[in-house]
Amino acid sequence: MLGTLHQSMSFDVILESPVLSTFYPPLRTLMGPGPSDVSPRVLAASARPTIGHLDPLFVGLMDDVKRLLQFAFQTQNELTIPLSAPGSAGMEAAFVNILEPGDKAIVCQNGVFGGRMKENVERCGATAVMVQDRWSDPVDPSKVEEAINANPDAKVLAFVHAETSTGVRSDAEQLCRMAKAQGILTIVDAVTSLAGIDLQVDAWGADVVYSGTQKCLSGLPGISPITFSSDAVAAITARKHTVQSWFLDMNLIMGYWGEGAKRAYHHTAPVNAIYALHEALLMLEEEGLEASFQRHEINHVALVDGLSRLGLDLAVALPWRLPQLNAVVIPQGKDDAKIRSHLLNEFNLEIGAGLGDLAGKQWRIGLMGSSSHQVNINQCLAAFESALAR
Amino acid sequence: MLGTLHQSMSFDVILESPVLSTFYPPLRTLMGPGPSDVSPRVLAASARPTIGHLDPLFVGLMDDVKRLLQFAFQTQNELTIPLSAPGSAGMEAAFVNILEPGDKAIVCQNGVFGGRMKENVERCGATAVMVQDRWSDPVDPSKVEEAINANPDAKVLAFVHAETSTGVRSDAEQLCRMAKAQGILTIVDAVTSLAGIDLQVDAWGADVVYSGTQKCLSGLPGISPITFSSDAVAAITARKHTVQSWFLDMNLIMGYWGEGAKRAYHHTAPVNAIYALHEALLMLEEEGLEASFQRHEINHVALVDGLSRLGLDLAVALPWRLPQLNAVVIPQGKDDAKIRSHLLNEFNLEIGAGLGDLAGKQWRIGLMGSSSHQVNINQCLAAFESALAR
Repeated sequence: MLGTLHQSMSFDVILESPVLSTFYPPLRTLMGPGPSDVSPRVLAASARPTIGHLDPLFVGLMDDVKRLLQFAFQTQNELTIPLSAPGSAGMEAAFVNILEPGDKAIVCQNGVFGGRMKENVERCGATAVMVQDRWSDPVDPSKVEEAINANPDAKVLAFVHAETSTGVRSDAEQLCRMAKAQGILTIVDAVTSLAGIDLQVDAWGADVVYSGTQKCLSGLPGISPITFSSDAVAAITARKHTVQSWFLDMNLIMGYWGEGAKRAYHHTAPVNAIYALHEALLMLEEEGLEASFQRHEINHVALVDGLSRLGLDLAVALPWRLPQLNAVVIPQGKDDAKIRSHLLNEFNLEIGAGLGDLAGKQWRIGLMGSSSHQVNINQCLAAFESALAR
Repeated sequence: MLGTLHQSMSFDVILESPVLSTFYPPLRTLMGPGPSDVSPRVLAASARPTIGHLDPLFVGLMDDVKRLLQFAFQTQNELTIPLSAPGSAGMEAAFVNILEPGDKAIVCQNGVFGGRMKENVERCGATAVMVQDRWSDPVDPSKVEEAINANPDAKVLAFVHAETSTGVRSDAEQLCRMAKAQGILTIVDAVTSLAGIDLQVDAWGADVVYSGTQKCLSGLPGISPITFSSDAVAAITARKHTVQSWFLDMNLIMGYWGEGAKRAYHHTAPVNAIYALHEALLMLEEEGLEASFQRHEINHVALVDGLSRLGLDLAVALPWRLPQLNAVVIPQGKDDAKIRSHLLNEFNLEIGAGLGDLAGKQWRIGLMGSSSHQVNINQCLAAFESALAR
């Protein structure tokens, strides 16, 4: 009987075309370097009916999102918006708008993303003066001071606040103050720091700061919040060369994300992803920034404590550890890929592999945004206990 | 009693902070130039739990999406992927990857988006030879032939298949054949054409073709499907200059969207938007391309018929009308903005205003993807009848 039904509904044909079926993802616990767990509230927001990107109600929502991002970035910067592309486009937007051909930028590298900054500088026709630090170490302010003194003509100091590849925090406040004192603009990668650790854009005098939605905000992946100080905007409007990217040209984007009714068409905003970001930012505002930082810190301590009872050590020295991204030394003789597969297949738990030189040597365990939660910590510790015992 | 409840629930405070509330969009009927109506199936897909962008299951989904996009584009091109940004980034990706400084491109302009192509060409340090046609007319192949003959050194012929600003279809097949005969690469804007009218990438010999998800695919706004022929890939790999955009550099993106396990990290894909695109493409495959084109055509005829009974004429000559985007002449003495407000506020119906020179002179009524439906046509005609009678 079931066989007949099977035939009559042509399941054979359907089974021959596996493409022809809806994708039902498993319920993972996301403790890698991002995306982090997205809450049901944010997922529900993303599924609300799409409206036009020039609809007056959407324009109002854009204004709300800008205000909420100002809150998250701790800034009054008027030009504080979500770019319609991932964090790597946020990085590119920072460099292509500020740098012109022939400019010089001091770039600090202590992980993967400092290297990506160098790529961006050079693709702008500018020169990158590199300040290198060992991966797993923070950016060394004394080296930066030397570089600033040796390059008084530098236009930009660029560095990563929270290095996603190593789990290291650098002292953004000090670096921004040093640059400011010399009239140098700062470009700060806050992809992993925003909402996870303190980030005071105005108080620290940072000029261009970009982030991503899929880390400590726990919005949907794909959007890059970015903010520009008035000095940064002045540099953009004083440019001699057209920005090389049309899509990321802030002169055009300012018209699109400008105030209310005067909005000029630039591109179609990712409407539903903005719904999701709005909801994620509301949740952050409800919790409060300070409370969010504390939660990230408390859960970090609990995780490290549990890992240490399993014999696992962190790779980063205590003062520079990111609570939202824990770099763990892979013990001698343990098989990196096998253990991560075990965690994923037996526990639906995703953690991150090492990037670049750290591949095979470290794991990256994220406790970002909605993933920074007791339930996740317990799941993670139980999963590691099982994996290490094999 | 109700007053007391009101007080006790602190509604006053909530009302004072309008930011602090979830955004519930109204249920609009989207008949503008995009986004189009997104079906409940696609919205539901976008709200499924986020998984990691390097998760083996997501990597499998990426392969399915590539195959479904090949189907939609009618191509075997291996490099057929969804870019993690809107259609305007798709346009930029086409130009920055193919053009190098000093190159020459013939650019056809018969609306807003041909002008945007020129901007992109020039930002690549290349020269744009413009072929101008009147807005509301198609690209004139005889002018293009002249331009090709006068510029045998041109590397690229670029044109818009379906001009979103005017509702005009150009003869992409003929234009691609003319370019091919001279060994010139084509860059084709198919933002509004894909899935709405016939678009045969391989049979017509188009080289780079990009689109958007928010038009006739009725996915969520924010993603740009793009396909590159083997000639286009050869041009990219033979470049002398680095691609000026890191985010859109296809040499890097090929590694990310390459086959299966060898995938290299580039950026974090917009996971949930890809779920939505996958579902939208499944719906297209279920319906069939030919059936989708026919549906767009039949509904277009029905709309035009109804509009004509209301005394409204189309702005585009019969052979070049896009079924998915109907440019309507605003009758003498009728107030553009007032009528569109009436449609939106009284009928929850969005239609498009005229762009550029056509502002105030034309409306753009979209029948794209899920919006190409009898229910929408009836709603639109009833709304116009009401608005015009006032």
